Amino acid sequence: MSNTKLQPVLDHIDADFDNSLERLFALLRIKSISSEAEFADDCKAAANHLAKDIATLGFTAEVRPTAGHPAIVARVNGSSDGRPHVLFYGHYDVQPVDPLNLWHRPPFEPVVTDHADGRKIIVARGAEDDKGQLMTFVEACRAWKKVTGSLPVDITMIIEGEEEIGSKNFVPFLEANKAELKADFALVCDTGMWDRNTPAITTSLRGLLYEEVKIKAANRDLHSGVFGGGAQNPIRVLTRILGGLHDENGRITIPGFYDGVKDLPPDILAQWKSLNLTPDTFLKPIGLSLPAGEKDRLLIEQISSRPTCDINGIIGGYTGEGSKTVIPAEASAKVSFRLVEGQDPARIRQAFRDYVTARLPADCKAVFIDHSSAPAIALDWDMKPLAAARRALTDEWGKEALLVGSGASIPIVADFKRTLGLDSVLVGFGLDDDNIHSPNEKYDLRSFHKGIRSWARILAAFAEAR
Amino acid sequence: MSNTKLQPVLDHIDADFDNSLERLFALLRIKSISSEAEFADDCKAAANHLAKDIATLGFTAEVRPTAGHPAIVARVNGSSDGRPHVLFYGHYDVQPVDPLNLWHRPPFEPVVTDHADGRKIIVARGAEDDKGQLMTFVEACRAWKKVTGSLPVDITMIIEGEEEIGSKNFVPFLEANKAELKADFALVCDTGMWDRNTPAITTSLRGLLYEEVKIKAANRDLHSGVFGGGAQNPIRVLTRILGGLHDENGRITIPGFYDGVKDLPPDILAQWKSLNLTPDTFLKPIGLSLPAGEKDRLLIEQISSRPTCDINGIIGGYTGEGSKTVIPAEASAKVSFRLVEGQDPARIRQAFRDYVTARLPADCKAVFIDHSSAPAIALDWDMKPLAAARRALTDEWGKEALLVGSGASIPIVADFKRTLGLDSVLVGFGLDDDNIHSPNEKYDLRSFHKGIRSWARILAAFAEAR
Repeated sequence: MSNTKLQPVLDHIDADFDNSLERLFALLRIKSISSEAEFADDCKAAANHLAKDIATLGFTAEVRPTAGHPAIVARVNGSSDGRPHVLFYGHYDVQPVDPLNLWHRPPFEPVVTDHADGRKIIVARGAEDDKGQLMTFVEACRAWKKVTGSLPVDITMIIEGEEEIGSKNFVPFLEANKAELKADFALVCDTGMWDRNTPAITTSLRGLLYEEVKIKAANRDLHSGVFGGGAQNPIRVLTRILGGLHDENGRITIPGFYDGVKDLPPDILAQWKSLNLTPDTFLKPIGLSLPAGEKDRLLIEQISSRPTCDINGIIGGYTGEGSKTVIPAEASAKVSFRLVEGQDPARIRQAFRDYVTARLPADCKAVFIDHSSAPAIALDWDMKPLAAARRALTDEWGKEALLVGSGASIPIVADFKRTLGLDSVLVGFGLDDDNIHSPNEKYDLRSFHKGIRSWARILAAFAEAR
Repeated sequence: MSNTKLQPVLDHIDADFDNSLERLFALLRIKSISSEAEFADDCKAAANHLAKDIATLGFTAEVRPTAGHPAIVARVNGSSDGRPHVLFYGHYDVQPVDPLNLWHRPPFEPVVTDHADGRKIIVARGAEDDKGQLMTFVEACRAWKKVTGSLPVDITMIIEGEEEIGSKNFVPFLEANKAELKADFALVCDTGMWDRNTPAITTSLRGLLYEEVKIKAANRDLHSGVFGGGAQNPIRVLTRILGGLHDENGRITIPGFYDGVKDLPPDILAQWKSLNLTPDTFLKPIGLSLPAGEKDRLLIEQISSRPTCDINGIIGGYTGEGSKTVIPAEASAKVSFRLVEGQDPARIRQAFRDYVTARLPADCKAVFIDHSSAPAIALDWDMKPLAAARRALTDEWGKEALLVGSGASIPIVADFKRTLGLDSVLVGFGLDDDNIHSPNEKYDLRSFHKGIRSWARILAAFAEAR
């Protein structure tokens, strides 16, 4: 039924694109930063705004409370003739904007502007991650509804507000509502293309373990003239411990860290090699030239299939302008690990804590905060909807869609499998230079436009493939 | 002439003490933080306030501009009968107050309150360092003037507003005004007692070198999912370099750092050993139990006669609440070195910078900021005014005043010698638990009271000793 209707739907998407953009901007203007308490009302506002918009597409759309920021559940049922039922997932929350002074424009005042190389780009916090991405799907549904009066498949949308802070309250919400959230498979729009012209479906994801560690020494800040030399300095202790997390070859030194980590199968390694990801294409745009990971691994392995450790933040002592001769009472750091298949987050957490604790000198103690964790994911490359999505993407972009591994974590994929029994198809239109989680986040205008068209085609392909 | 008048002066100090305290409070209420630009007007206000107050003692007191915060020059000349002329030095600027949340009361609302052990203490930023200390001298002058109509010696006061930020503009001011600032010797009130009951004169001071280092890697903040493993992380680089500054035995690993550093003469080491400074007396009050410095040195050496390295501040990446999976573009730290005789600050600065630079991986660069430096000082233990001051202190406190080495730096002492050719006598009434440079800075009420009495006696002793 779908293909005869697809072309008018695509034509409508093109004709209505300025309005699609205006609807995205309305969402981007809402400061829905989930990690900072002061923006809790903005998160609510974003949920209300989205639910109201999705309701106009014929969905029953509800803002539903969780123990944290609310989630949106929206459903549209068709003729119950056995057509596929997909569960679409996105998130309306965004990352904090600091350092604000590095943004060229206010992060919540979206604009379309010119990239240095002439591309049109949408600039705002969330332009890509994940407001721009989730709106590609919403706008595709809108076009189907407008042109044909209905949608080609049954759809449940679930849109959360805590992805950027570990979905701690969202997962229990899934558990509690699993009967309502039944579907055939899930669609997740939070990933990227291979490059600007090559669409991709992500079939493996690294896991994530995020820890905060605070080292405490004296019971107060000290003057380094009076106590320097005699008193423990927690920054010294912290840098000594963290500075030893990698060896000379870029390997992580925590005992047992690599236990269970397998090398890539030779055929996949060969495929990846053929993609020829060079430092020049991947690192040069960010001002770097040499891969910083394990010296005996390809760059594509370092960023996709190998586990990593990064210190994401560190603070201690006097950090204002000028100088202060203080020995602080404490210093802390945020440390995260990207995990791969075979690594258990709970075991790695314990290994990290043991590593730190074993290296504490007298008079120092370590306090840990567990921010989030998720295991790595490997999806079935042969699942049927994945093949349908791949064909649709290839049609839209005129280039064979690749099946790729992602270095990032989308913990919800594991949660869908565990709580709802659903496999996920991960399609997205982000690019490596989108600056997600950074100042000046952007989304290519072409990603947004062809992203909407891609989903319109994918929904048609699902309907056909049943 | 002096001794017959001394007792009435001391009596007046006791009788007028409440007013002395009120005058100190008026100065403590002024937020003269020199390191932060927003408090520049407060620094001016403190200078004006002090000059006005000192003028009431018969001094010609002027607020004099420098390239930074102003200085006060005040002078009172006597009968020009060849009596001693002293140059008194103090500073009206104070350290920043962060972390503000650790203060039990607002830092610029001074109060007298009870210490946990029952001592009366004055609590405020600057209560000791250096407003409380400099006011002991001002109040002693006030008592002499009030009771006798004059001062027992000729006095020039010079009070600066940039001690806490390295006196960069004050030293050129000294150079430019050296003819006006002639005196027989200098008095500096910015040091401490040996313990609560034992007065001390400081005869050696460690030097200070204060550097800031910023490590830069990528040209923007990165997402650790996309780039983690492949991109350099400047926090990892910074912690690795700083974490290697000390070896397992607490020695600093910078090549050449200890060149020229001499062991204490055996007789002084023996004297110091007899003072029996134990971790229990020195470290236990701050919540520590074991000396953290060079393992083969006494605690008193670690804090007084050995050079040290402390990281005073570190910052990079995401430091807000919750988590953010960022690889930052840069990370920075403030690193200071306490120096001893034989170490040239300029040479140590270069050695530190070479050390950092030699350890930078590909794609990283280091930017350095020089905050301040001063060589160590060793004063002549046999100078005549020092003996007079020692007798006066012993009379006031009923306990032999000790000659001690200080771990802290008072760079102005070297500057007085170099620019004005003056030796300094360093007397002060601070205690190790005064929390200077920390939240809840305090000055014992007894330090303030007996400090005033001590200076009244010292001035008399100088007059007698001529």
